[in-house]
Amino acid sequence: MMEKRRLYMDYSATTPVKKEVLDEMMPYLTDYFGNASSFHTFGREAKSALDKAREQVASLINAKPNEIYFTAGGSESDNWALEGIAYANRNKGNHIITSKIEHHAILHTCEYLEKHHGFEVTYLDVDGEGRIRLEDLKNAIKDTTILISIMFANNEIGTIQPIKEIGQIAKEHNIVFHTDAVQAAGNIPVDVKELEVDLMSMSSHKIYGPKGVGALYIKTGTKLHNFVHGGAQERRRRAGTENIPAIVGYGKAAELAKANMDNHISTLTRLRNRLMNEILERIPNTRVNGSVENRLPGNINFSFEFIEGEGILLLLDMLGIAASSGSACTSGSLDPSHVLMAIGLPHEIAHGSLRLTVGDFTTEDDIDYIVENLPGVIERLRSMSPLYNESKK
Amino acid sequence: MMEKRRLYMDYSATTPVKKEVLDEMMPYLTDYFGNASSFHTFGREAKSALDKAREQVASLINAKPNEIYFTAGGSESDNWALEGIAYANRNKGNHIITSKIEHHAILHTCEYLEKHHGFEVTYLDVDGEGRIRLEDLKNAIKDTTILISIMFANNEIGTIQPIKEIGQIAKEHNIVFHTDAVQAAGNIPVDVKELEVDLMSMSSHKIYGPKGVGALYIKTGTKLHNFVHGGAQERRRRAGTENIPAIVGYGKAAELAKANMDNHISTLTRLRNRLMNEILERIPNTRVNGSVENRLPGNINFSFEFIEGEGILLLLDMLGIAASSGSACTSGSLDPSHVLMAIGLPHEIAHGSLRLTVGDFTTEDDIDYIVENLPGVIERLRSMSPLYNESKK
Repeated sequence: MMEKRRLYMDYSATTPVKKEVLDEMMPYLTDYFGNASSFHTFGREAKSALDKAREQVASLINAKPNEIYFTAGGSESDNWALEGIAYANRNKGNHIITSKIEHHAILHTCEYLEKHHGFEVTYLDVDGEGRIRLEDLKNAIKDTTILISIMFANNEIGTIQPIKEIGQIAKEHNIVFHTDAVQAAGNIPVDVKELEVDLMSMSSHKIYGPKGVGALYIKTGTKLHNFVHGGAQERRRRAGTENIPAIVGYGKAAELAKANMDNHISTLTRLRNRLMNEILERIPNTRVNGSVENRLPGNINFSFEFIEGEGILLLLDMLGIAASSGSACTSGSLDPSHVLMAIGLPHEIAHGSLRLTVGDFTTEDDIDYIVENLPGVIERLRSMSPLYNESKK
Repeated sequence: MMEKRRLYMDYSATTPVKKEVLDEMMPYLTDYFGNASSFHTFGREAKSALDKAREQVASLINAKPNEIYFTAGGSESDNWALEGIAYANRNKGNHIITSKIEHHAILHTCEYLEKHHGFEVTYLDVDGEGRIRLEDLKNAIKDTTILISIMFANNEIGTIQPIKEIGQIAKEHNIVFHTDAVQAAGNIPVDVKELEVDLMSMSSHKIYGPKGVGALYIKTGTKLHNFVHGGAQERRRRAGTENIPAIVGYGKAAELAKANMDNHISTLTRLRNRLMNEILERIPNTRVNGSVENRLPGNINFSFEFIEGEGILLLLDMLGIAASSGSACTSGSLDPSHVLMAIGLPHEIAHGSLRLTVGDFTTEDDIDYIVENLPGVIERLRSMSPLYNESKK
């Protein structure tokens, strides 16, 4: 019997851990298991690994090592940035600006701050490609605005925001600027020295590092409350025993990402474009959501008219292709993607969307297989769709 | 050349990952890397591992699986319990009761709630063994009391609190009861059905599981705010991509802890008592801090008069013995332990303390080695101590 195909096309949801990364982690999952805050040899071994990883992650984004704070992941980093800035600046104001297409780790934290802690949040609209308008941002700023949080690159449609310009506006108005770079940092060049960014959320498991670890970049001098209170770890700013094996893995993943950046971008872009163009040629009534120009290299987001995303995922999964209809974090919800709605898609078209993300292990053969099989999947679903049959009359 | 001895006597700070635990984790660090919230096969593999681990951890404390919420560790669990209950019950009152010997994840969160969010906290004294007095607790309760948080077992001196009695008092007064069981759950029997506990913090890396994962037990019906906002993970209560490899490891560690509980307790107690008694016999002017009767099986906490803990740790480390002067989370601080001060030790004696914790990999030979070497270490340090020389006149 032939082994079932396992074709992973969901690199935006999570990535496999690269072998070089796991190799770096293994000693810390076995012999070098010490608590990095301990005084003894076991502790110092761990501490030294922690220092190295901090340098590797800092180097990825051109930050200083002491501006990197390890967290349990992107969501914690987002929560920390928002709540930390909000509570620390209450005396200055209670207004936060974000966008309608942020990850839920931003949106739900903003809603929480509104509902329970007396903050007011403006959610900026985006254009048809998913970019905020700088004029909208300027117009939304008030005397009470204490924080602007706009994501670097969108997890569903891959749109990259004008981060440098947003940062300049924030700086002109003396407002703290946070960006959720979970999809960006390690996938595209990110240089905090070039950008006017005060806080930046990052994640390991989106760049071939382990799950359970991320970081918050905090520019020197930025004042915010702690989020996890307790021990003196992370220079007294983030409590909890340091997750050394994961942090070591994240460090290595960051190092690899930096070293392979050019090749990563060109290879993913080539594979992505081939897949995108061949599907657009072969399947009628199909659109690509998001920007062509300002887009993460691995991301495609299609809408196929007349059908539902869930049916596509199911049939693709039976063919061994792992894809997504949006963010993994929102699965279980029956609502259409808030991102696709925000870029102006009608409800019924937003429902028929498919996200395919290529990654460092994607091959030309994988693309061939999808190009061969996806048209049949769409055709089969459309043949069962009353809307489609209606449209052909 | 002989390999340097690596004798780990700091199991309360962190434990090595057991081989059986790592073996369970490895497939999820390699082939089965999916995001547990994804719809496809990779996602379902991860989800199924998550479900199994939840059952294993629930079983350890006799909870229902849907009362277990995975977190990034004990500190996050403590922060979530305290802030979650505090903010959700603001309309009922603003008073919290805890003790002076809690872990800093409790104490610093309480201080934060006092300083920045309008809460009032009573810090109960403890007796000479480190136990709170139930009368003190009853007297501290006010109409505005919304939460009692008392740790199950202390991380420095191993003292076990009268949790059942505290829970009954909390229940009689209709007050939510949280216990930090990071040192207890998996080391001694903990049965939430027998105890009147509403919330309980737990950690994996204290029971031979990986770092970076813990859990909060939330009794069905307990209302609290979320701590990490975002995606719909953990039944919409704790956002962030599930750290499946670590969660799987924690599940296995919990299963092993439950299966080996009797042997774990009897072996550790025997080794601990032998070490304790031989040291007390061989080294004069030495006391054991904490309770003899109500004590974690692996814990010893000595005070050696006339000398400083740091010197002891340094000389022991040169002999290959990894020990601690208190909690790893407070290292870097020059203050004496808040726990030892709370049980009434004078400043200078609290400074000369040594925590040795035995664990599942400790051997009789390890105990021999310490018994042979520790008296010389103490003697050497005392010989350099003006206080000691003074005392002998």
